[in-house]
Amino acid sequence: MNFTNQEYYSRLFKVKERMQNNNLDLLIISDPANMNYLTGYDGWSFYVPQGVIVVLNKDEPIWFGRKQDANGARITTYLKDENIIEYPEDLIHNPPNHPYDFLTKYLHEQNLFDKNIGVEMDSYYYTAENHLRLMEGCPKATIKNANLLVNWIRFIKSDKEISYMKDAAKLVQEGMLTAYKEIKPGLKQSFVAGKIQNTLIGGNENLKIGGEYSGLNLILSSGKNASASHLTPKDNSFKINEGTIIEMSGVKQRYHCPMSRTVYIGKPDQKINDTLKITEEGIEKAIEFTKPGNTAHDIASAFWNILKKYGLEKESRCGYSIGLGYPPDWGEHTFSIRKNDMTILQPNVTFHLMAGMWMDTWGIELSESIRVTNNGCELFCNFPRKLHLI
Amino acid sequence: MNFTNQEYYSRLFKVKERMQNNNLDLLIISDPANMNYLTGYDGWSFYVPQGVIVVLNKDEPIWFGRKQDANGARITTYLKDENIIEYPEDLIHNPPNHPYDFLTKYLHEQNLFDKNIGVEMDSYYYTAENHLRLMEGCPKATIKNANLLVNWIRFIKSDKEISYMKDAAKLVQEGMLTAYKEIKPGLKQSFVAGKIQNTLIGGNENLKIGGEYSGLNLILSSGKNASASHLTPKDNSFKINEGTIIEMSGVKQRYHCPMSRTVYIGKPDQKINDTLKITEEGIEKAIEFTKPGNTAHDIASAFWNILKKYGLEKESRCGYSIGLGYPPDWGEHTFSIRKNDMTILQPNVTFHLMAGMWMDTWGIELSESIRVTNNGCELFCNFPRKLHLI
Repeated sequence: MNFTNQEYYSRLFKVKERMQNNNLDLLIISDPANMNYLTGYDGWSFYVPQGVIVVLNKDEPIWFGRKQDANGARITTYLKDENIIEYPEDLIHNPPNHPYDFLTKYLHEQNLFDKNIGVEMDSYYYTAENHLRLMEGCPKATIKNANLLVNWIRFIKSDKEISYMKDAAKLVQEGMLTAYKEIKPGLKQSFVAGKIQNTLIGGNENLKIGGEYSGLNLILSSGKNASASHLTPKDNSFKINEGTIIEMSGVKQRYHCPMSRTVYIGKPDQKINDTLKITEEGIEKAIEFTKPGNTAHDIASAFWNILKKYGLEKESRCGYSIGLGYPPDWGEHTFSIRKNDMTILQPNVTFHLMAGMWMDTWGIELSESIRVTNNGCELFCNFPRKLHLI
Repeated sequence: MNFTNQEYYSRLFKVKERMQNNNLDLLIISDPANMNYLTGYDGWSFYVPQGVIVVLNKDEPIWFGRKQDANGARITTYLKDENIIEYPEDLIHNPPNHPYDFLTKYLHEQNLFDKNIGVEMDSYYYTAENHLRLMEGCPKATIKNANLLVNWIRFIKSDKEISYMKDAAKLVQEGMLTAYKEIKPGLKQSFVAGKIQNTLIGGNENLKIGGEYSGLNLILSSGKNASASHLTPKDNSFKINEGTIIEMSGVKQRYHCPMSRTVYIGKPDQKINDTLKITEEGIEKAIEFTKPGNTAHDIASAFWNILKKYGLEKESRCGYSIGLGYPPDWGEHTFSIRKNDMTILQPNVTFHLMAGMWMDTWGIELSESIRVTNNGCELFCNFPRKLHLI
C-alpha cells in the first residue's frame, strides 16, 4: 500500500464525519481518485461502472466493479475480500442490462435501499444513466448530492502525499528538459512527444524512479495552434519562428506535479517576449501572496494587478488545486485561483499556478506547482521560467 | 481535416436520419469520439462540460465548450465561426455555477427549449449533474435517451477510417516489438513502459509516422498481478519465472488498433503454455467464423467451443467493436463478441478479438484487431501469437 493503514483510516474517519453532518447513511463514490484515496484501488477500469461505497456504520468501505477487475481490487486495496463485490461480466456494454441494476439489488440485499444515499452528481464516470438506474432501483432512498465531499477532504495533503508530489516534480523537470533538448526545426511533434513520455514514465539516468500515465495528456502545440489551450502533439513539424506551448505532469502513485513552459525557435516577436515577462511578473507576485491565511482570491488579485498594470487581459482562472488524479484531469476540483474564490490557504495545500495566455493567433504558457508551507510557500520545481529559445 | 467534407456530411446525414426515426429535433452529443466523428473536434478538453448539438433543420452541427477551447474548435473542425459557441470561463469548476446552465439559456435563445432533445444518457462525461441542469433548465422539453445513436453509425468504417487503423497497426506492432526487446529481469516495468510509449507515440526508424495518446493506457502487469485485467506499469521489476500480460494500442487520428500478448521470463509452467495454446486455437477458430452475415454470437460460439473442448472457462466477452476513441476507452460500445449478441457482421466492421484469461494467481492475454472483408476477414497486424519467451 502507498500509505499506512492509519492514514487510510484517518481519511475514512473524516469522510464519515462529513457524512454525518450531511445526514448521509451511505456514500457512493464514482470518481476514481476518490476511490483510490479511500481504498488504494488503482486500475484503468473506470471505463466501466465501478465505485466505492462508504456505509456510515460499517468499518470498511466496499469496492464494487466488474468480476474481471476484482483481482485488481484484491491486489491494490487493503479491503477484506468480503468487501470486494463483483458484478457479472454480461452487464458490460450490454444494454438494456446495466451494472447499476446489480448495485441497487445489492443495496436491497444489504437493507440499504431506503437510506439517505450520497452520490457524486458531477463526478467523471457518474453518468446520467447510473443516476437514473439508482433512483429507479431504490425509490425509497433519499438521494442527495455529495459532489466534492471527498475532494474537499483531499484539500490538505499529508507529508507522504507531498513526498509523492516531490517525486513527480523530479520527473516533470526531467520531462521538460527532454522537450528543451529534443525540439528542433523539422522534427515531428510526435517524435518529441515520444521522448518526453519516455522520460516522464521511464525516468532517466538522473532519476532513480519511473513515473505513470498522467491525468491530463501532454499538451504541446505550436504557432497558431498554440492559441488553443488543449491541443495534443501530432505529426506536424516544428518550424522556425514559431512558439510552442508545453504542459505536462510528472506522476507518482497517481499524485501529480504539472508544469508549463513556452519554447520558441528563432527570434521571438516583441509581443511574445513582453507577454511572457508580464506573466512571469504576475506569477512572482502571486507566489509572494501565497501563505496560510490568504485566500485564493488574494493570490488571484495579486496576479491580475500585474496584468492590469500592463493592460493585459486574461479571462480564465490562473490556477487550481492539484494532487491525486486519473484521466481526464489532474485537478482536484476544490478551489481555483480566481477572483472571489474565498478559500483560505492552509499549510500543505497544493495547487498549480497556471498562467496560460491564449491569444488570437498565438499563445504562451507558464506555471508553477506550489505547496503552501507554515509561513509562506515552496515551489515543487526549481526550473527557469524564461522563454526557452532554440 | 482528416476526412473530406463529403464524408463528414454523409455522417451527419445518417445521424439526422436516425434522429427523424426517433422523433428527435435536436441531439446533444457528449462523447468526445462522437464529437470528433461529426465535426473533427480534437482536444483534451473533455475534463470540462462540452458537446456538439445536431439540430435537425440546421445545416451544420454546433460545438459548445469553454471560451478557452473555442480556438481549438476553430482549428480542428470544419464549422463556421457562428456555430462555435463558447461559455464564460467563470463557469469552470465553480459550483453552484455550471456550464449546462449556459447551455439551457442558449437553447432558450434559439427556441429549442421545448423540443424533443436526445441525450447520450450513459456516455462518458454526460454526468448526472449535466442531465439534471438540462431537465431543470428546459422543463418543457421532452428529453429522450439517444445513447449509442451516433456510435452505431460508426459501426461500419469507411476506407479512410480503415487506412488510419492500418497506420495504428504499424505503430502497435513496433510497440510490441519494443516490449519484447526491452523486457529483462531486474528492469523496472516503468522503464520498459517509457520505451514502449516512445515507440507508440514517437515512432521509430521503421515507421514514417508517429502516433497519439491512447483511449486506454498501456496495461502491463506481471506474476500474480497478471491475474488482474487492468493494472498499469509501476516501478516493480521484472522477475525470472514470471509471466507478463501486455495490452496496448497504436493510435492515428484517434483511430485505434489494439493488441495483447503475453511474455514469460524463464521456462513457463505447463498451465501457462497449455492455456495460451488453447486460447490461440480459440482465436483461430473465431477468425475462421468472421465473415459478413455471421453474427457476433457465431464468432463467440466458435471461440467458446474450443475452450469447452479443453474444459477451460472464461466469463468475460472475447471482443468488442473498435475504432475512434478517447480516454477512458478505445472500444466503441456497439457490439461485443459474446454469446447472444446477434449483431450481424458486415464488410468494414472492425473489432478487437480479445482473449484475456485472468486466473487466481496468474494470467495470459492474446488478441487480434480484425476487419471484416467482403468474404471473410483480415487481421490488421501480422504478428506471432505464441507466448514470447525471454
